[in-house]
Amino acid sequence: MASDPLKNIRFVLCETAHPGNIGAAARALKTMGLSRLDLVAPARYPHPEAEWLAVGAADVLRRARVCATLDEALAGSAFSVACTARPREVAVPMVAAREAAARIVEVARSQPVALVFGNEKYGLTAAEVGKCQLLATIPAEPKFSSLNVAAAVQVLAYELRLAAVGAAVRHSKGKPPEHATHEEIERFYEQLERSLLAAGFLNPRNPKKLMARLRRLFGRAHLEQEEVNILHGVIKTLAIPKKYRR
Amino acid sequence: MASDPLKNIRFVLCETAHPGNIGAAARALKTMGLSRLDLVAPARYPHPEAEWLAVGAADVLRRARVCATLDEALAGSAFSVACTARPREVAVPMVAAREAAARIVEVARSQPVALVFGNEKYGLTAAEVGKCQLLATIPAEPKFSSLNVAAAVQVLAYELRLAAVGAAVRHSKGKPPEHATHEEIERFYEQLERSLLAAGFLNPRNPKKLMARLRRLFGRAHLEQEEVNILHGVIKTLAIPKKYRR
Repeated sequence: MASDPLKNIRFVLCETAHPGNIGAAARALKTMGLSRLDLVAPARYPHPEAEWLAVGAADVLRRARVCATLDEALAGSAFSVACTARPREVAVPMVAAREAAARIVEVARSQPVALVFGNEKYGLTAAEVGKCQLLATIPAEPKFSSLNVAAAVQVLAYELRLAAVGAAVRHSKGKPPEHATHEEIERFYEQLERSLLAAGFLNPRNPKKLMARLRRLFGRAHLEQEEVNILHGVIKTLAIPKKYRR
Repeated sequence: MASDPLKNIRFVLCETAHPGNIGAAARALKTMGLSRLDLVAPARYPHPEAEWLAVGAADVLRRARVCATLDEALAGSAFSVACTARPREVAVPMVAAREAAARIVEVARSQPVALVFGNEKYGLTAAEVGKCQLLATIPAEPKFSSLNVAAAVQVLAYELRLAAVGAAVRHSKGKPPEHATHEEIERFYEQLERSLLAAGFLNPRNPKKLMARLRRLFGRAHLEQEEVNILHGVIKTLAIPKKYRR
């Protein structure tokens, strides 16, 4: 039982031709908090190009298992998912990446899961697909649906992370801005209206019409306290002092 | 007014150092039905490596605009979004990629939108971010959140496609399998129960207990008509003919 489902998910790359793609896949996994990588019969590996493209994910690459066959890589997996760009004749159900990620994470909360990617040119063979219980596809342009294998790994890893831990976003370390209160904003509108009336910008018989538009604009901006203070200052500075007005 | 919002979205890569990333970005865009690419002061471009990695997206690369400044690239855009891995001190709101994609597509239904990506090593400068109205970030592992720039382009392009046209999946061209009807499945269970009773596999006093488990198993599989026929055949073949039974 793993508390973190991402630790129970391994990515399996079959017969990858370009070592650069292996490195880029390792990096893609690490950015999403994944780390298990199996390489089934890679054409050229280890290879310096894999290391260059892994950048800060050399640890993922170092711990990658090289397997002779897909069966070896899938041993122990309770759920195997094949990633494919095209529908297959095999009678394995196909779902979009997002739904596949949800199903994978559900299983991976308690058992190991494998995601299988094919060779750059030929994809997965029917025999390889036949060893999997689900096909996952990345929705794409029908006329040009072939993602680079490391790019496909990135998209699936991204969907898995969202399914497992959500889309929490790190915000700036500073404390979040304090939004202005209702009264602060109303005081601002009062000052603004007075100033615009005094400057002759509003129709004295119907000042509310333009004010409503200004309210809409500032309302959308969801003003912060500090911004209200700044705006007060701006108006004070711009407004013609009484002594110069007639 | 564009009917296809994806045609109103341009990706802007600032000061990209590696031409391979430009090619990979072009391919990533094309797989998602996007095609507009601006290159602000690329270090090495044009370059054969960009073409190698674009693979089938040479057309996107050929039509890419090379701009001297970010302002030149953003000219005409009604909404500019900066893609960044880290929170910034700039007072620009930050949202996750999925929410950014929804907002971008909304604007792009009627006006041009730009998505801005920084240099591989330094990302976007504060001045570049300051020209944008929104920050989009790809949720990632806090300790290693730096996606390759082409991988980030792939994820954003993918989210934009989903936001614009949904996650429709191309299924196999063959007609979809016909699921078995209730009666067909009940007939199958009857035959199965008879055969298992005859074979002594079920407790004659409580045959329903094991049958309930078998029903659960086959129920989950959502049997197709053809599969029910196959199962009938399997049982018929396996069941001991009456004449050999005592």
